[in-house]
Amino acid sequence: MLPPEVVPQAHARIEPHIRRTPLLRSGLLERWLGHELWFKAECFQRIGAFKARGAMNTVLALEERGERPTEIVTVSSGNHAQAVAWAGRERGIPVTVFLPAASSPIKRQAAAHYGARIELTATRQEADAAVKESAARGAYLLHPYDNDFVIAGQGTACLEALQEIRPTAVFAPCGGGGLLSGTRLAVEHLAPGTPVFAGEPTLANDATRSYRSGAIVSLTDTPPTIADGVRTLSVSARTFAHLETLAGFFEVSEEDILYWTQWLTHLLKCVVEPTAAVAMGAAAQWLAGQRSKQRVLVILSGGNVAPETQREIWATSRLDRLPARESSAV
Amino acid sequence: MLPPEVVPQAHARIEPHIRRTPLLRSGLLERWLGHELWFKAECFQRIGAFKARGAMNTVLALEERGERPTEIVTVSSGNHAQAVAWAGRERGIPVTVFLPAASSPIKRQAAAHYGARIELTATRQEADAAVKESAARGAYLLHPYDNDFVIAGQGTACLEALQEIRPTAVFAPCGGGGLLSGTRLAVEHLAPGTPVFAGEPTLANDATRSYRSGAIVSLTDTPPTIADGVRTLSVSARTFAHLETLAGFFEVSEEDILYWTQWLTHLLKCVVEPTAAVAMGAAAQWLAGQRSKQRVLVILSGGNVAPETQREIWATSRLDRLPARESSAV
Repeated sequence: MLPPEVVPQAHARIEPHIRRTPLLRSGLLERWLGHELWFKAECFQRIGAFKARGAMNTVLALEERGERPTEIVTVSSGNHAQAVAWAGRERGIPVTVFLPAASSPIKRQAAAHYGARIELTATRQEADAAVKESAARGAYLLHPYDNDFVIAGQGTACLEALQEIRPTAVFAPCGGGGLLSGTRLAVEHLAPGTPVFAGEPTLANDATRSYRSGAIVSLTDTPPTIADGVRTLSVSARTFAHLETLAGFFEVSEEDILYWTQWLTHLLKCVVEPTAAVAMGAAAQWLAGQRSKQRVLVILSGGNVAPETQREIWATSRLDRLPARESSAV
Repeated sequence: MLPPEVVPQAHARIEPHIRRTPLLRSGLLERWLGHELWFKAECFQRIGAFKARGAMNTVLALEERGERPTEIVTVSSGNHAQAVAWAGRERGIPVTVFLPAASSPIKRQAAAHYGARIELTATRQEADAAVKESAARGAYLLHPYDNDFVIAGQGTACLEALQEIRPTAVFAPCGGGGLLSGTRLAVEHLAPGTPVFAGEPTLANDATRSYRSGAIVSLTDTPPTIADGVRTLSVSARTFAHLETLAGFFEVSEEDILYWTQWLTHLLKCVVEPTAAVAMGAAAQWLAGQRSKQRVLVILSGGNVAPETQREIWATSRLDRLPARESSAV
């Protein structure tokens, strides 16, 4: 594990560039569940997701060390690509994002809007190969989670929340494990002893299985979960070292992901991507087993939802079943 | 017209009860349109819409005058019913909302969550009759817009924005005209001379036709616009007196309402009800005709969107056509 101090260091570094996102609450939800719930709304972060934090911290940390890259490359179709594109533009460093041609045009567009060069390849394997080739030529490969600067940066979302409240438990979604590793460090720094829990879609439960077995389990195919931010095939050794110290993992069904995406959108009035709802699904399961009143912090990862995903989210209404203590562990 | 001072008076009265909502911007949208756009995000207001302002101002003003009602009644299926229910509960006054049985269960539920008694009637006409009967028995009928306290309260959204920025034009959606009347007064108070424009769905253009002809035009049937906050059949003499002093009306097509609902949701990351997008549709039309750089204020009325409406909004993606100077006047 990294020393917890890397998180406040990252925060001092990126603070002038990022937004301090609000902590949201819903009176109705708290009444229904009988607990206090605080939501760190990273949808209002630059590029619409927490990923801006890790990308910016990496670029600034490299500059501090005198290792400013002449070019940055990455492979991602999601929030990470936008984050790297944005961070590169902010610091005047050219960014190339390699993407398989089958990726969503809207997501490609988004990275392009932030000024990245988009290189389409026939397959994901070719994209990976192209990135490695660029890296071999001297470009900096900014990995979405297997990078200490990225981990420290992602932890700043939780750090900001802990500067304002003292929760009894913290929840975040698990993809490659970068957000949770950073969150764990932030808690260690400001509120040691507070349990940190991970939520993961049942359909993409590699990290849960890794946590339970004590060894990294990898999926073979991209899992068909609607939570597109956590479709990673496996965590890395670097993030697993942090994940092993978590208080627990909860698997969240696709039904619960849709349920909480609808309800959090409805109650908080911000755009909640399904990946963010995974953390709430975990919190609801944990809260259903608590006898005393709790105060939980839920890191809402972001609000970048493709229109096709919005259509899928709203195809059937889930708002006729109210959240309740007993319905929390659906 | 009311004296403009009623708006700051209303603000002083309701400030401890309401939220000061944020002003949001989108760097991408400003780059694409070539203008500065500030959005007053009333989705983060109590009950999810600006209506909380007018309802609370009415109740508090009545209390100040020693005319605290023993009961409040209203007819509404939308944000106004929630606002009255909320204001009544906050001040310990029982609220009854009369609703036709055909109204949306989700919307009924929402008013009930805030503690109102819901009375279902067979038709809208019966609901109107029941409200009048209650009023005759001494209950206070809190009308959604034909009420000076309501008008003054709705103006406080614009007032807050004008305390922070000085726009070159202000836009709001037109239903019964309460929000626009109050907005006009707020501008008169803090930024006299700044033009205020109304947006109205083409399918519900009674106020536009009234404005052009100089006499109140009334629709005969509830118009089938997706913007359910502005389906009112006509403005009232009280609001029309203010509306006649506006700088202009813009009609917005259903296509443009859906287009801006999707884009503002995507860019601002808050829930944008179609009624709010009507104001943006008007702003886009006006901006398309401007040669110099403008700074517009758009009042986003709220973020209460029923799941059926979400499904309709996202049925077809509009995000493949980027906002642009030339595409603004679709």
